[in-house]
Amino acid sequence: MRKVIVQKFGGTSVADTEKIKNVAKTVIREKENGNDVVVVVSAMGHTTDYLVKMAKDLSADPSGREMDMLLSTGEGVSIALLAMAIQAQGYDAVSFNAMQIGIITENVHSKARIIDIKTDKLKKNLKEGKIIVVAGFQGVTEDGEITTLGRGGSDTSAVALAAALNAERCDIYTDVEGVYTTDPRIVPKATRLDEISYEEMLELAHAGANVLHPRSVETAKQFNVPLRVRSSFKTDNLGTLILGVDKMEIYKPVTGVAADLSQARIVVCDVPDTPGQAAKLFSNLAKEHISVDMIIQSYARKVSNTNDIAFTIDSSDLDKTIKTLDSLKKDLNCGDIQVNDNIAKVSIVGAGMIDRPGIASTMFQTLADLGVNIKMISTSEIKISCLVDKDDAERALKALHNVFELEGDETAVVKGDLPDV
Amino acid sequence: MRKVIVQKFGGTSVADTEKIKNVAKTVIREKENGNDVVVVVSAMGHTTDYLVKMAKDLSADPSGREMDMLLSTGEGVSIALLAMAIQAQGYDAVSFNAMQIGIITENVHSKARIIDIKTDKLKKNLKEGKIIVVAGFQGVTEDGEITTLGRGGSDTSAVALAAALNAERCDIYTDVEGVYTTDPRIVPKATRLDEISYEEMLELAHAGANVLHPRSVETAKQFNVPLRVRSSFKTDNLGTLILGVDKMEIYKPVTGVAADLSQARIVVCDVPDTPGQAAKLFSNLAKEHISVDMIIQSYARKVSNTNDIAFTIDSSDLDKTIKTLDSLKKDLNCGDIQVNDNIAKVSIVGAGMIDRPGIASTMFQTLADLGVNIKMISTSEIKISCLVDKDDAERALKALHNVFELEGDETAVVKGDLPDV
Repeated sequence: MRKVIVQKFGGTSVADTEKIKNVAKTVIREKENGNDVVVVVSAMGHTTDYLVKMAKDLSADPSGREMDMLLSTGEGVSIALLAMAIQAQGYDAVSFNAMQIGIITENVHSKARIIDIKTDKLKKNLKEGKIIVVAGFQGVTEDGEITTLGRGGSDTSAVALAAALNAERCDIYTDVEGVYTTDPRIVPKATRLDEISYEEMLELAHAGANVLHPRSVETAKQFNVPLRVRSSFKTDNLGTLILGVDKMEIYKPVTGVAADLSQARIVVCDVPDTPGQAAKLFSNLAKEHISVDMIIQSYARKVSNTNDIAFTIDSSDLDKTIKTLDSLKKDLNCGDIQVNDNIAKVSIVGAGMIDRPGIASTMFQTLADLGVNIKMISTSEIKISCLVDKDDAERALKALHNVFELEGDETAVVKGDLPDV
Repeated sequence: MRKVIVQKFGGTSVADTEKIKNVAKTVIREKENGNDVVVVVSAMGHTTDYLVKMAKDLSADPSGREMDMLLSTGEGVSIALLAMAIQAQGYDAVSFNAMQIGIITENVHSKARIIDIKTDKLKKNLKEGKIIVVAGFQGVTEDGEITTLGRGGSDTSAVALAAALNAERCDIYTDVEGVYTTDPRIVPKATRLDEISYEEMLELAHAGANVLHPRSVETAKQFNVPLRVRSSFKTDNLGTLILGVDKMEIYKPVTGVAADLSQARIVVCDVPDTPGQAAKLFSNLAKEHISVDMIIQSYARKVSNTNDIAFTIDSSDLDKTIKTLDSLKKDLNCGDIQVNDNIAKVSIVGAGMIDRPGIASTMFQTLADLGVNIKMISTSEIKISCLVDKDDAERALKALHNVFELEGDETAVVKGDLPDV
């Protein structure tokens, strides 16, 4: 049986007809390798901005349903053009939007999640030797309503299609050359990783590395789809392969460092220490589709018998969050609500930090040496994140990249607390 | 039961967000009249040209399927924006593309015909009090392939929807104020008709009056849908109502005159006079979706026992026609193929010319007096068309408009041969 390769090209890769011709060449090269090819594309370059601008001209608060109808046209254009470009090279190609395939999502607008993908049409067309071009970012509900997947949507479409088709690999073509130890625009010594585990990538993605949205990595991890991040323009560079940790040799305690500058911190002060208060708070935020990242609840103060609950959200959800909290204030019987969006989350990530003591303390000491104040800390098995002032983020990142020796190709070793392996 | 009014707005009426806001007002006015409203819109202004240009950048001969996929995105944008504009005025609106509704067409790309329209979704949403905004010009096959309807497509979508919903009326909003006795740009004395029959409109449309495409008029006639052509910009002007001849008083022998400058004449010379030759010729043209207008076959010459077959087509089909004829030449065993696209078809139209002698001779005499040579003649019950040199078209039109006294609001009377009524 022939292997299926899913390729994904983002908006900058299909920004004009010349670039679409280049994408067609990359697609055909994979077909010529003897593989079945399914290509997922986003809307062309600035199409989405242009459509959003017109919508804002007409309505201060356009409905989610109509926004999805509007935005989904963007990929309709790019899939048809790419199919034409492939056909012009003498190869058989066919384009499908999400409705035609049946990329079924939940009934939520602007950030729907995929729940199923019908594969009959895809398999039939692959069998006929066709290259299939699929609209990313969009879906359809069981009732035939058009939805969009929100941020990271096209990557997620590609990974979900790869999972549904049991693909050999999902190649995400992008404007960077792979996954780096940290943001090369901030730390010029950053190096590209040949391989990284889903878990590490996930933590890096959550921590603000903009290469891949965590949703797509989570989906890849769930269905064990090998994911390759590679450059649209330098196609001889194989980029970074992201795959299951069991397939990898772990030798670095820390694989990468990242900073996320788009968060805001909320502190809900003096929440009475009675059962169900946190549940009430976070379920109401969830109802508004506000994703909460770090959460810290202090021990209850003995005198007032109240807690402070602090958490971080994406800055773009800030208005909605404040609105939600204002309407909850009475019900929670809490005190002030403090907001700070002048913050950054700096993280170190590495599957190798499991069972290796001292990584956290090295991180905290490094920040302390810089005089950087840590406002919140959150940890997972393979990640440590510290909330700091936004102004401190860059030098924190550089210092951490240096202290965990991520530059160069040699194995990164932690200064000071060498692991006992 | 509430009455359903279908409204249709073309590309120039929705060319930018300001114009879309105006359309929203017109739609809401009809809703405020107490009617259920279904609005059909085309793609915004120059969207289609822009999309076609990109396609041509990528392929000299883009596939019909992918062109339809590409072009259908245009209405996706305009329906969403119009729905938003209506919502912004505080009214409930919902947009649907052809696939969502189920505007089922035959499986032909770029000029598909509608074969069925599902009405459950439309009726359900109208019942909920919503204004429905529908993408014109597009359809979907039973297999879920996206099609477009070709020229006059959005008008046809609107009329077909009106028929399917048993609508009270279909209002075609356009950039002219109604149907005129002839083209007011050529004959300044042309006057607007308050009413005209389907049959007359059909002949006028075929004869080159660009107000409505004959397809939409044919569909309206078939389902007896009253059709109103009116201005998008001067909405207090009621335009022209097109309806069944039984509802009208016929008092004019000639209702309008028209010129069609977009035709080309083909003469296939010396076709052997054996059965099946014409069938072979025209069935092959039909297979290529080339519409033939006038057809004239001379009597067989006694000596050579051959015919000349002359016919006219739309100039845009000229290349395809020549290609088809070249491939048929051997099979037909015919002589030269002569092409002339420097011609015009001048027509007079009127349900009142039935049973009134002398109309044709008045037309021919008028042209003769001008020194205009008639190259072909074709007649129907309510129309007489003459093929003339393109350069003669304008003065022929003016003279006919004058001789049949179409200027002014008084009843038009034919000079010379007065009907005996």
